Amino acid sequence: MYKKVKVGKKILIANEECAARNSQFLAEGKKLCLNMISSPGSGKTTILVRTINELKGKIKIGVIEGDIQTDIDARKVRATGAPAIQINTDGACHLSAAQVSGALEKLPVSDLDLIFIENVGNLVCPSDFDLGENGKIVVLSVAEGDDKPAKYPGIFAKSKVMLINKIDLLDAAGLVEFDIKKVKADARRLNRNIKIFPVSARTGAGFADWCDWLAEEVKELRSE
Amino acid sequence: MYKKVKVGKKILIANEECAARNSQFLAEGKKLCLNMISSPGSGKTTILVRTINELKGKIKIGVIEGDIQTDIDARKVRATGAPAIQINTDGACHLSAAQVSGALEKLPVSDLDLIFIENVGNLVCPSDFDLGENGKIVVLSVAEGDDKPAKYPGIFAKSKVMLINKIDLLDAAGLVEFDIKKVKADARRLNRNIKIFPVSARTGAGFADWCDWLAEEVKELRSE
Repeated sequence: MYKKVKVGKKILIANEECAARNSQFLAEGKKLCLNMISSPGSGKTTILVRTINELKGKIKIGVIEGDIQTDIDARKVRATGAPAIQINTDGACHLSAAQVSGALEKLPVSDLDLIFIENVGNLVCPSDFDLGENGKIVVLSVAEGDDKPAKYPGIFAKSKVMLINKIDLLDAAGLVEFDIKKVKADARRLNRNIKIFPVSARTGAGFADWCDWLAEEVKELRSE
Repeated sequence: MYKKVKVGKKILIANEECAARNSQFLAEGKKLCLNMISSPGSGKTTILVRTINELKGKIKIGVIEGDIQTDIDARKVRATGAPAIQINTDGACHLSAAQVSGALEKLPVSDLDLIFIENVGNLVCPSDFDLGENGKIVVLSVAEGDDKPAKYPGIFAKSKVMLINKIDLLDAAGLVEFDIKKVKADARRLNRNIKIFPVSARTGAGFADWCDWLAEEVKELRSE
């Protein structure tokens, strides 16, 4: 086990060095970069597609898509007109900073204001690997249940924003049990600065506040 | 990277040796052991609770619960009267055979017919770690979307059974888009022997077939 930890640390250090280079590259261009993390099926891609459409003409967005296999998600993003680079991890459970570095070379970064990284669907492993982003966005769908911040604290503690998605399912009485107050309190106990936006990527509910926040972050970064 | 692969392999081999010992121990007692794997929030614990209640008086079930933190799930299982041992992985993204071996020592195995292992919520990493089980059960909730077998093929290729959970959400017209035929076809392309049960742990739909299958598996194992 000693050996495992030693090598594991070396990999993490190599990743951090590469993440720092990504971060510097993005900071020089004043590009906002957000790393989106969640379980599979929480709605990350649908959120991205609606976000891109709502901000069209205001903020230029590019996407780096991480998946174990397929380019389903990159194709969905490209259908909006936004550029998207697909990374296939071929079995790996998270994106690495080196993979993101390669994707940044392929994206038309100088034309963009905001770069979203959609990580591999996994609430655990991606939280340990910095990619050079300005912040992490954790997405939790109400269908996943309200005990997730307590059971998977790592990612909630590290995220700048929590999107609570699929809130339209709460309107169908009795279908989904999800105590939104409890989830907010649990997340804030782990991370008192976390911004929380309840949204529905299907209906658009809550997107005005989320998109306003994004626009404000882009503006702040530019004026620095 | 070479070193990483070499050490990673050693860890996998150590795990396989321990899994083989678990498997032998369970086989000697003719105990059926099933390893349940899914994303967080697909409904594994709720499925287990209903399964235990439906099979009460027929099949004696014990549960090994794997979570990063908390004993929320073990407490839910114990409320049914069934024994449950909670393992906290403290950050690790999957259960190991050694952890399961320790839990088997604490469970009253000789009194049981069937042992469920509920793995850490993660559709990726747990699929690489055998625990000594007779088979893996992958759970996919309809809220997660119908592209999951294509995007996370590993676990669907390796599972004995797929439970498609939360099918009651499909009745609420337009709320959830999920092509059940496509998911079945995609899963069978990866694994032509996979058994598929669409269920709702909330309403009990589909549980008769799933519980009949479990009872049949327990009977077959005993008669071997």
